Amino acid sequence: MKRRAFISVYDKVGLIDFAKNLVEKFDYEIVAGGDTYELLKSAEIEVINVAEFSNASGLLSKDFDAVNETIFAGILANSSDTRELNELERLAVKAFDMVVVNICPFEKIVLESNDVSEMISKIDVAGVAILRAGAKNYKNITVITDKVDYYVALNANDFGRLKLAVKAFNLTAAYDRLICSKLAEQTGEKPFKTFNFEKLKDMKYGENPHQKGAIYKTDRMIDYEVINGKELTFNDILNVTEATNLVSEFYDVNCVSIIRHTKPCGVALGRSLYEAYTKAFDCDPVSSFYGTVGFSKTVDAEVAKHLNSMAVEVVVAPDYDEQAIELFSDNSEIKLVKLNTSLKDYRRLTVEEVILTPFGALVQDRNNSELDKDMFKVVTREKPTAEQIEDAIFAWKVVKHAKTNAVVIARDFKSVAIAQGQTNALSAVEWALNYACDGSKEAVLASDSFLPAEDCIYSAIQGRISLIIQPGGSIKDQNLIEVCDKYGIAMITTGIRNYRQ
Amino acid sequence: MKRRAFISVYDKVGLIDFAKNLVEKFDYEIVAGGDTYELLKSAEIEVINVAEFSNASGLLSKDFDAVNETIFAGILANSSDTRELNELERLAVKAFDMVVVNICPFEKIVLESNDVSEMISKIDVAGVAILRAGAKNYKNITVITDKVDYYVALNANDFGRLKLAVKAFNLTAAYDRLICSKLAEQTGEKPFKTFNFEKLKDMKYGENPHQKGAIYKTDRMIDYEVINGKELTFNDILNVTEATNLVSEFYDVNCVSIIRHTKPCGVALGRSLYEAYTKAFDCDPVSSFYGTVGFSKTVDAEVAKHLNSMAVEVVVAPDYDEQAIELFSDNSEIKLVKLNTSLKDYRRLTVEEVILTPFGALVQDRNNSELDKDMFKVVTREKPTAEQIEDAIFAWKVVKHAKTNAVVIARDFKSVAIAQGQTNALSAVEWALNYACDGSKEAVLASDSFLPAEDCIYSAIQGRISLIIQPGGSIKDQNLIEVCDKYGIAMITTGIRNYRQ
Repeated sequence: MKRRAFISVYDKVGLIDFAKNLVEKFDYEIVAGGDTYELLKSAEIEVINVAEFSNASGLLSKDFDAVNETIFAGILANSSDTRELNELERLAVKAFDMVVVNICPFEKIVLESNDVSEMISKIDVAGVAILRAGAKNYKNITVITDKVDYYVALNANDFGRLKLAVKAFNLTAAYDRLICSKLAEQTGEKPFKTFNFEKLKDMKYGENPHQKGAIYKTDRMIDYEVINGKELTFNDILNVTEATNLVSEFYDVNCVSIIRHTKPCGVALGRSLYEAYTKAFDCDPVSSFYGTVGFSKTVDAEVAKHLNSMAVEVVVAPDYDEQAIELFSDNSEIKLVKLNTSLKDYRRLTVEEVILTPFGALVQDRNNSELDKDMFKVVTREKPTAEQIEDAIFAWKVVKHAKTNAVVIARDFKSVAIAQGQTNALSAVEWALNYACDGSKEAVLASDSFLPAEDCIYSAIQGRISLIIQPGGSIKDQNLIEVCDKYGIAMITTGIRNYRQ
Repeated sequence: MKRRAFISVYDKVGLIDFAKNLVEKFDYEIVAGGDTYELLKSAEIEVINVAEFSNASGLLSKDFDAVNETIFAGILANSSDTRELNELERLAVKAFDMVVVNICPFEKIVLESNDVSEMISKIDVAGVAILRAGAKNYKNITVITDKVDYYVALNANDFGRLKLAVKAFNLTAAYDRLICSKLAEQTGEKPFKTFNFEKLKDMKYGENPHQKGAIYKTDRMIDYEVINGKELTFNDILNVTEATNLVSEFYDVNCVSIIRHTKPCGVALGRSLYEAYTKAFDCDPVSSFYGTVGFSKTVDAEVAKHLNSMAVEVVVAPDYDEQAIELFSDNSEIKLVKLNTSLKDYRRLTVEEVILTPFGALVQDRNNSELDKDMFKVVTREKPTAEQIEDAIFAWKVVKHAKTNAVVIARDFKSVAIAQGQTNALSAVEWALNYACDGSKEAVLASDSFLPAEDCIYSAIQGRISLIIQPGGSIKDQNLIEVCDKYGIAMITTGIRNYRQ
């Protein structure tokens, strides 16, 4: 018996070849409508017009030529059941074996439509209905929604057809979800938040060996590759993200960030990348062991040599020069991540944060705060030098990425101490000063949250800090300023809090 | 002109009344199929059978009586356009004004089906196609998918019909998504991960004032209410989650957890809830200011009095007794969260964690680790007492919720020091011992990650710690044990790492 395919596609790439194969090599009868019919006809492929095939009544416009009993009976027919086959024959149902349908992505419709009415008028009804019918009947119907499946599908068994059906339902689900969101926007709100991720792979485990973990593809991902060493683990991805977040703050200069347990433990800028690296490393050599190191520029041989001599787990950089790659090639312990997306574009990427809690799912914008010159104020009599202000801006950008309560002490574009994960601001100030020892002398001190009490200032003064940068906004701000003025220390308030829980 | 409604519903509650109203008060002609037709007929409501209405050819089974040109032409008709109206009249298209369709939820189909074939055979094709056609044509068609909309829908204007269309597309999107997931499971994997959250409300802001934030409803939420004070903020929800996570570890005894910036800063058990509260508070009174306090049992007047006298922002508890509520009623500054889900059930809730990164979306199981007696080993010559082991288990449960690297020093079911957010284990040990002062004497020390070097043990010995509990698994484990044995300190290894980034 001749096999039969229904074809109606938006994406016509590769269709002519495929249809030719169907007809000539696999003895298919092709039924098609609209511009798919025209295309095949003009390519001199034997094809039956769907309106003719099903004696369409003309009640509906051409787009709906396939919405009729003849077509649906043919697509829903259980042709593998002999009893039913007899019934189908009695009714002269012309059963299909294949459905090749894809529709214009709704994202594209949204982009190209001038108004909502136009957008809505382009919502597909017939194609989706046929796809769903075909996918439901996947035991008898091969449903193709994607040109990449053209040739695999020809030899698909039950299992293969099931996979194709999954793909079809994924398409219709995503299509309707996007319509739903877009229409909802018209009602003045976005009442639904939907994420649909395609699995990239299961990971060995999640944050800990007893937790299952997996990584999924999203539509807001950068392009990257691992060019040396093993696959990235769950925790590696977290660390690489933090390392890249930090260097992306300083994408136009030489910057190095060292991350351990997703927390910065050394960040620095340098005249060369190597200088930045050694400065960052000096901040906390102990924590830097088995750390993840981020670079804002191409890793060269000088840096590579030192990385190789250290216990570094992961490196992330925009690129690695030839000599560097050569040096790493013997080191299977080090994972090299190459960013194919520029750090500038990385910064522009708007990734939302989602936190699922038993009290509800929290969704927020990523913290992309920038200093605002209207809020940035020197509030003390003592005025900082230009160099101190530059260090303060550097420290402010670093402390933004540390966990609250966080305090960064920095000098000469080098983090001297990074206090974080503290549960009050004074503890963070004290931890950082203790850690810095005499490194705090004439350095700047940045706090992610406002300093609540004079104690914080007294501690900074004892540590011989020259400039404090903090959000301000405490009811005690004036008292703090008085202490600063009394002891001749400068303070900037930014008006921007950077909690990071 | 008589208005026309197509009705085919799975959920028949309230339908008879509604249909009666349509016919008698609003002069509707009703077209219905299948058991909806039978139901209306038996209720003596005037109704036309869809097969008769559309002269169905009988090619398709009864479920598909509505899949024909007559019905789709009627549902897709642009009856508000006069030019098109003429054309519709010429073709004798019988336009519809309302579509009332809902389908059996796929969750229910999954539950009730014995095998995949049965499940798939129950996938709705006709109803979804009609819903989508009606929703697309929402300017002319009122689409009702939910009985709660029956009477509102009757007076819906353009805007109201748009909202109903959003609801319809939400239904079809969710339906196909679930089919997709279930079919995908049959292929041996879950290639897609989908979340679809309904917005509960926009929040004033996210983690910081410059970040937008909102909270969404999920299908894995507990039941809770805020019975005093203002609405919970974004950060409140994070803190309440941590506070509840902690007390749920000790749901059958009196437990209090104090959280600041999502981190525990005091946890204790007590003979009374009040005793537990004062013990927890003693751990870090400074951080406890403006903290969130979690209780495992009903808050009574004694506890309420003290909470009222403190600067506490949020309290979460299974309940509050009458006297306590009375005491709080004058205090509009304190937010009281009442858990209507038991802490035992809370523990069973399997919430996944999702972390969206530019390198992919990470999904993992929540860390629900429990001590495993097969891995729980006293590895030293010195054996701990029963009391010490109980304290060790307590400390282990607390340190699991602190941020890595974390160390908890505890004695008599009271956290004495909680070090967290450190970037190496030795720092965490030292911070905790410094903080504890003489509180570490004869206490236990728990680390979330393995202790990597003898220094950690020497520090603990100097702090007069009597028992260490840690995952073990370092290549230096044997050296550490030797130091313990030399100085007569006991150590337990659990085999379970509890990183919490």
